[in-house]
Amino acid sequence: MGSKTVTIADLLAPVQDDLQVLTQNLKELVGASHPILRAAAEHLFEAKGKGLRPALVLLTSRATMGTGDITPRHRRLAEITEMIHTASLVHDDVIDEAEVRRGIPTVNSYFGNRIAVLAGDFLFAQSSWYLANLDNLEVVKLLSKVIKDFAEGEIRQSLTAFDVTVSLNDYLEKSFYKTASLMAGSCKAAAVLSERDPAECEQFYLFGKHFGIAFQIMDDILDFTSSTETLGKPAGSDLRDGNLTAPVIFALEEKPQLHTLIARELKEELDLTAALALIEQSSGIERSKELAKQHTKLAIQALEFLPHSPYKKSLIGLAEFNLDRIF
Amino acid sequence: MGSKTVTIADLLAPVQDDLQVLTQNLKELVGASHPILRAAAEHLFEAKGKGLRPALVLLTSRATMGTGDITPRHRRLAEITEMIHTASLVHDDVIDEAEVRRGIPTVNSYFGNRIAVLAGDFLFAQSSWYLANLDNLEVVKLLSKVIKDFAEGEIRQSLTAFDVTVSLNDYLEKSFYKTASLMAGSCKAAAVLSERDPAECEQFYLFGKHFGIAFQIMDDILDFTSSTETLGKPAGSDLRDGNLTAPVIFALEEKPQLHTLIARELKEELDLTAALALIEQSSGIERSKELAKQHTKLAIQALEFLPHSPYKKSLIGLAEFNLDRIF
Repeated sequence: MGSKTVTIADLLAPVQDDLQVLTQNLKELVGASHPILRAAAEHLFEAKGKGLRPALVLLTSRATMGTGDITPRHRRLAEITEMIHTASLVHDDVIDEAEVRRGIPTVNSYFGNRIAVLAGDFLFAQSSWYLANLDNLEVVKLLSKVIKDFAEGEIRQSLTAFDVTVSLNDYLEKSFYKTASLMAGSCKAAAVLSERDPAECEQFYLFGKHFGIAFQIMDDILDFTSSTETLGKPAGSDLRDGNLTAPVIFALEEKPQLHTLIARELKEELDLTAALALIEQSSGIERSKELAKQHTKLAIQALEFLPHSPYKKSLIGLAEFNLDRIF
Repeated sequence: MGSKTVTIADLLAPVQDDLQVLTQNLKELVGASHPILRAAAEHLFEAKGKGLRPALVLLTSRATMGTGDITPRHRRLAEITEMIHTASLVHDDVIDEAEVRRGIPTVNSYFGNRIAVLAGDFLFAQSSWYLANLDNLEVVKLLSKVIKDFAEGEIRQSLTAFDVTVSLNDYLEKSFYKTASLMAGSCKAAAVLSERDPAECEQFYLFGKHFGIAFQIMDDILDFTSSTETLGKPAGSDLRDGNLTAPVIFALEEKPQLHTLIARELKEELDLTAALALIEQSSGIERSKELAKQHTKLAIQALEFLPHSPYKKSLIGLAEFNLDRIF
């Protein structure tokens, strides 16, 4: 377990065919009837790094169906999950006025705000409609909560920009809203569709929640430790935008000068460079990594009850892989 | 019936108290927890001309509950309806880059695109969540369809800008998606919450649908016939933006020169003035008014089965009032 030679392709192998069907379906769904969105759809569903969220749904679906095949509703849930995620990215990029994401121009920078708002609304609207037609009120509630949490997370992030009094708890809550809520809600929903006991469904919620928090922490670490080339956006972007993540919150405890720099919104020349150096000198990255490990452990513990299967192995493998990823 | 001395206040009197509670609830909901949205909320829920859609829901709720009081779920449905409507206006204004609506600066022009996208997403998200918690799958489906139709309508409008081959049927479909779907779905949902027979619920769907189409046609007529002051935006805005509505579609049948002007997107000097003059000389406005009357008649016919009540009287009165409104 946790061997460095395991690749993401190995981990996704048990649902590789499912993921290919999903990508094709999503492109057809968005592109077919609306030429105006076709280019945006190709752009959105081709990007690297896609597929983690539907993979978690599909692996949970297969893990909870035992020897039976997964149903069309499991597949639809995976599509809904990816649509909600993609819609939120598109609108986040409008809100943050982001120009690149993973090395690719954002929809707003490439097609303009108009198409970006339209494309995001279309995806949210389509996912609400598909969701209602899963004909399962519990699943509707789980995923509606996720959509509400996204909006809440984005507002919290706006409210706390450059706020040096932000606590680790505020950060964890925001990370839950932005990232973990979708993984928690969609993994639990997959188990609900498999008609597993409520207590078991709740374990999948915990798995998704802790995986999601660990995933967000790693993303926030990589924003400092990766090169601009690997990230596909300028390193230190979060800090520059006033989004104070785990490494910064830990570093603030050790480096009083960092307060001064951030409180003036890094507006003087070389403020950002100085702040990045202070964070590097602190134990912020190390302590953040430790926090990600704790949440990964909680995620894996949540699945202890599950009998062994290739799907369980991949779910755990993905949680471990997250700690070693470099982008 | 239809007497000119009836005012909108008379027609809304049977649900005036309900509407006051609703406005207060909506402002608290959006503003309380999020200072960043508080100003936008005051702005959004104070504007004139608000309240028609929740009034239709509340009147339908009271008309279908007979002597019983309406339930908290009816009230919540009315709030959801207004939230969905408001969210769609806010995003439409971003998409259309509109600067004023009913004489008031739009959220995007006043607070920027960032807050406008955020506020719209928050309202859509909150309404999805409330909707799921009405615990009625039929109502969830009805309103999810409405959200999907909004996105569809906005895309259709984008696709057909300055398209002189657009048919009256295309126009009616777009008007359904943009306006009538919400009135149809929410009136039917109110009857569903009152547990009326499916056939009766369907009559409320038809009422809302035909009222909504007549309402959109009147809006589109007023864009040509009202003064800029009354409209609170420049008269002829729809045409200038390439949105070809009923008066234009009828005028195109009579005035070949109008084709030329619109096909070149009104780009030469005085093109818009010339086009407006051609439309005024045509029977476009008159025929559009006739079309609105036909749909109003269908709306009123749909309620024939209902026993007499102040609520029924107001529903019919609002449909008639729409034909005489000047803004």
